[in-house]
Amino acid sequence: MHTNIKYNKKGTPETSELRQDLVSGDWVVIATGRAKRPHEFVKARKKMFLQPKKRTCPFENLFKNALLVFAQGRNHASDWFLQVVPNKYPAFEKGPCPVIQDSGPYKWMDGIGFHEVVITRYHHRSIALMKDREVEFLLRAYQDRYLVLKDEDCVKYVSIFHNHGFEAGATVMHPHSQIIAIPVIPPDIARSLRGSAEYFHKTKTCVHCTILKCELKEKVRVIYENEYFVSLAPFASKTAFEVRIFPKEHHAHFEAIPPRAICHLANSLRVTLAKLYKGLRNPDYNFFIHTAPTYRSKEFYHYHWHFEILPKTAIWAGFEIGTGIEISTIAPESVAEFLRKIKV
Amino acid sequence: MHTNIKYNKKGTPETSELRQDLVSGDWVVIATGRAKRPHEFVKARKKMFLQPKKRTCPFENLFKNALLVFAQGRNHASDWFLQVVPNKYPAFEKGPCPVIQDSGPYKWMDGIGFHEVVITRYHHRSIALMKDREVEFLLRAYQDRYLVLKDEDCVKYVSIFHNHGFEAGATVMHPHSQIIAIPVIPPDIARSLRGSAEYFHKTKTCVHCTILKCELKEKVRVIYENEYFVSLAPFASKTAFEVRIFPKEHHAHFEAIPPRAICHLANSLRVTLAKLYKGLRNPDYNFFIHTAPTYRSKEFYHYHWHFEILPKTAIWAGFEIGTGIEISTIAPESVAEFLRKIKV
Repeated sequence: MHTNIKYNKKGTPETSELRQDLVSGDWVVIATGRAKRPHEFVKARKKMFLQPKKRTCPFENLFKNALLVFAQGRNHASDWFLQVVPNKYPAFEKGPCPVIQDSGPYKWMDGIGFHEVVITRYHHRSIALMKDREVEFLLRAYQDRYLVLKDEDCVKYVSIFHNHGFEAGATVMHPHSQIIAIPVIPPDIARSLRGSAEYFHKTKTCVHCTILKCELKEKVRVIYENEYFVSLAPFASKTAFEVRIFPKEHHAHFEAIPPRAICHLANSLRVTLAKLYKGLRNPDYNFFIHTAPTYRSKEFYHYHWHFEILPKTAIWAGFEIGTGIEISTIAPESVAEFLRKIKV
Repeated sequence: MHTNIKYNKKGTPETSELRQDLVSGDWVVIATGRAKRPHEFVKARKKMFLQPKKRTCPFENLFKNALLVFAQGRNHASDWFLQVVPNKYPAFEKGPCPVIQDSGPYKWMDGIGFHEVVITRYHHRSIALMKDREVEFLLRAYQDRYLVLKDEDCVKYVSIFHNHGFEAGATVMHPHSQIIAIPVIPPDIARSLRGSAEYFHKTKTCVHCTILKCELKEKVRVIYENEYFVSLAPFASKTAFEVRIFPKEHHAHFEAIPPRAICHLANSLRVTLAKLYKGLRNPDYNFFIHTAPTYRSKEFYHYHWHFEILPKTAIWAGFEIGTGIEISTIAPESVAEFLRKIKV
């Protein structure tokens, strides 16, 4: 029996834990900060509503435990534009570096890490409706917190993501992003690192640079570009209207983005989301950054960081979950043509 | 440019195609039988409704092009209990075996395969509400069609799955399963095969047999068992209330299940789904079979086929999609204890 962990009265482990799938080697999280009793899962999603009202919104005021606050213009921090706060229901919590432990044939470890929320000021101003300058603040906050979290002892990867809308998993409508720092390399990142390393060793070039060279020449899948960044509909899109934003210059690490480039990234992200907002009438979506792990001991020169934006245009059903093969019902070339034409 | 394929007036490829992600090597499908124009994606899910009414249900009558019909008891086929029909909007269609082709740095092939729908007679009788004998018919249909499709030239994998409820991706409420036969090994299956092969070479035992031995001894994650099968909440559950059903006897291939065992599988599946139905009040869910590929030229003795049942208790959001790490908010041990106690 998995006796190494304590169970509370609810029958859930006292601390979040990471458990490894014995077959795939992938990690999952059993999160107790967010734990529920069995009966609370009765049509859980149907009972859950998006918190849409400004009046009762938990993100309207400046938190006392804010980790980072950006004031508006030259004002005092109390007139804030952006704040970063610890997540009230963290999936990962601060603690001593976890050690992989055995439980029969299985492996597990404590879910040690950090879970933060990045909140922008205006309840009804999603990123698509912001000014470039406001998006720049958001990206600077991502970078600032990344630089702090990457130096924490146990942290191996920092995931930065944004859920927009109920269908995309947001439970609070007020625009907010999340930053989760974890003690393992996530399986999807591990696979991309492996793939890009193999490609590099075979061809002596970065796989993403090869893709960008092809895409910038052919233009059929390009949605938008500025001096430093390009938005495109990937050749093998995982879902309809998937968009990725790549820095044109090769770099493995998001956090290394120089100040001169960050305003161009803000422009790319804002324009891309505004095109989706206008073209698909404010679709629910998730976006996240894929970047190299935080290891200092290992080089990831073969990797190329980027944003992935995935609008919720379909539900992942039995085939997709059972095989890992996603079905997109529109060609990426048509997506790019459609979004290219939308003026924002 | 990806000029190898023809585009129709909608700007979508004329045939479904499989495209390979250059980094991960994973395949995705660009499906045109199901293709839409860009503007049709405007809040696509919100405009789509579950077809709940029996009166207008497309699955009420016997199809003329049925591929398999099981009559009720000793009656004529017109008094059918189960029919298998070709999917009207197939993700994969019959055709000459596809060849992997280049398009710049990318690879793609025609989406050749088969896509069938398994329909049981009664509009309001989901599997949880069926008799064991009825579920046995369903499983026999899976097996019968599997045995036909596996011998088709281009088929490398046959995916059998079931979507129950709108949140699980079903658009027709009438109980139905789907069978998709495809010309590639799906990435999730490839990973499980690799993991189980590595475990076998290291330990000379099947990884799933090791898991079953541990679980049947400790019982904390066992939900239900009969002579041949065991339902359990996996140690590293991907989602709250995930359940897997394993044959106790080692076998790589689902289709090899002997007649003496199939009624026990029917009982296992029915009891497990009935427990979820009662415990979570008819949750939406997906289930699928994970089994060895159809290759005759290669042995998969290290693999152990099984069912995976995933109730829709949460939405996959930015963290899950961006990392591949799933967060479950209840311990599998609590799930098993809860479901074990439910009498059905």
